[in-house]
Amino acid sequence: MTNKPYSVAVIGLGAMGMGAAQSCVKAGLTTYGVDLNTTALEKLKEDGAYGVSQSAVDFADKLDAVVLLVVNAAQVNAVLFGEKGLAEKLNKGCAVMISSTISAQDAKEISQKLTSLGLLMLDAPVSGGAAKAAAGEMTVMASGSKQAFDKLQPVLNAVAGKVYNIGEEIGLGATVKIIHQLLAGVHIAAGAEAMALAAKAGIPLDLMYDVVTNAAGNSWMFENRMKHVVEGDYSPLSMVDIFVKDLGLVNDTAKSLHFPLHLASTAYSMFTEASNAGYGKEDDSAVIKIFSGIELPKKGA
Amino acid sequence: MTNKPYSVAVIGLGAMGMGAAQSCVKAGLTTYGVDLNTTALEKLKEDGAYGVSQSAVDFADKLDAVVLLVVNAAQVNAVLFGEKGLAEKLNKGCAVMISSTISAQDAKEISQKLTSLGLLMLDAPVSGGAAKAAAGEMTVMASGSKQAFDKLQPVLNAVAGKVYNIGEEIGLGATVKIIHQLLAGVHIAAGAEAMALAAKAGIPLDLMYDVVTNAAGNSWMFENRMKHVVEGDYSPLSMVDIFVKDLGLVNDTAKSLHFPLHLASTAYSMFTEASNAGYGKEDDSAVIKIFSGIELPKKGA
Repeated sequence: MTNKPYSVAVIGLGAMGMGAAQSCVKAGLTTYGVDLNTTALEKLKEDGAYGVSQSAVDFADKLDAVVLLVVNAAQVNAVLFGEKGLAEKLNKGCAVMISSTISAQDAKEISQKLTSLGLLMLDAPVSGGAAKAAAGEMTVMASGSKQAFDKLQPVLNAVAGKVYNIGEEIGLGATVKIIHQLLAGVHIAAGAEAMALAAKAGIPLDLMYDVVTNAAGNSWMFENRMKHVVEGDYSPLSMVDIFVKDLGLVNDTAKSLHFPLHLASTAYSMFTEASNAGYGKEDDSAVIKIFSGIELPKKGA
Repeated sequence: MTNKPYSVAVIGLGAMGMGAAQSCVKAGLTTYGVDLNTTALEKLKEDGAYGVSQSAVDFADKLDAVVLLVVNAAQVNAVLFGEKGLAEKLNKGCAVMISSTISAQDAKEISQKLTSLGLLMLDAPVSGGAAKAAAGEMTVMASGSKQAFDKLQPVLNAVAGKVYNIGEEIGLGATVKIIHQLLAGVHIAAGAEAMALAAKAGIPLDLMYDVVTNAAGNSWMFENRMKHVVEGDYSPLSMVDIFVKDLGLVNDTAKSLHFPLHLASTAYSMFTEASNAGYGKEDDSAVIKIFSGIELPKKGA
């Protein structure tokens, strides 16, 4: 590495993107932040971002790397290839790290377009939650060329606690993330089902939470999300609709592989039911609200 | 407490019972072990048990406490009230700690019979796995009278890392354990479903395991049981048939409460299918064998 400053734009400053951008700032990278939400832009600017904007096109020619943490493949495509698309404004050899959860097929199609423009791509979904993102300790599950890994090394050093190199083939990263989301989604839905049954059986939910988190029935998602149920606080960190999308990708992946998913298809129905009942924009733990005839803890009670 | 030696018999020396008995020995209690398996009896004798036998009746009149860690309610009833039943041989005031996973209804019926004989009962299921049992650090979720808790204090000190006092009412402990098993069973089945999909998608299972255990999709059961799948070793620590039983209890409990369980009913079907396919006596991670058209790791490969 030379001493030339390294410039990166993080696009999508939600729970994960904001943390990733802050971690890039802390690591000393020249960091740009992009989001439609001006509050998020102001916050990142205060935290030390070199520049912020609602469009990355403004500083496209200065970038060594771009990290995309928008919601889905449609948004990735809109940012890169839509009207005022970013991709054709980037310098040749710039590396695009796609960390949104998208299908392997979408990842491959995006890769083809980026490659034809002389750009590098890392298929690099992330996990860990907002706290790990803020601490620069996300788990990154990535596939791509050695050049793409090399070019993104400063970014990976800044944002990741652990980087898995799954292989060269674009799509492997997306697939590993989707299988990971199968577990994450089923675990939230199972936590909701268990807590709902406890409520019905007259077991205090704070006690049930305490037992499970000290026993073999625990999961990362149970411990993190069922706390929201115990506290009656459904302020969204990650929303029900995100799991409608992600478990939808899980089931699309299974369909393309001609493979049956007993639990993930059921969990998908549970989140979809919660969304249709009006809870789509609440915290994903609100999937528990599909159960009737129980009384759940109220906030501040 | 006086300095009079405290005598306890542990009945059922399986994965959990052996650890509990060893922990009682280590804590300095006069410990008796009971099982039909003579190998287990010999092992516990070598480890310092005061006495071992295929029937607890031999030393019933010496006991302050009995811990039952047999497989199910039928075995609990057989030990206590069957031919050569133990209950009527115990001294008045002896405390019986029932740590098998049984229904709340069974716990209540057993309690009535024990109470009529002047015995104390703690409805005290446990969790934590064989390693925690061996270390004297099981999680105990218990309900019962203050007298029962007091009388069993030396045993609880010896075997438990954490004791939850759920209330006085017999059946609450059983219910909390059953809800815990809902999570444990769904998590194993979800782990199997995810790993099976990974195998189908061509993702190396050791890499998938590594990613999940370092990310938000992890669960205690995934980390513990999917290791067996990665290693291709289905030697039973806890068997498929145990979860056919436990998820059966989960669904019975839900039925008695008129409550729908989307995921637990699905997981029950998966374990039952695995049992019917001939894997009932294998490790519970063998539920993954219900998926066809995939290649799983072989032992020692």
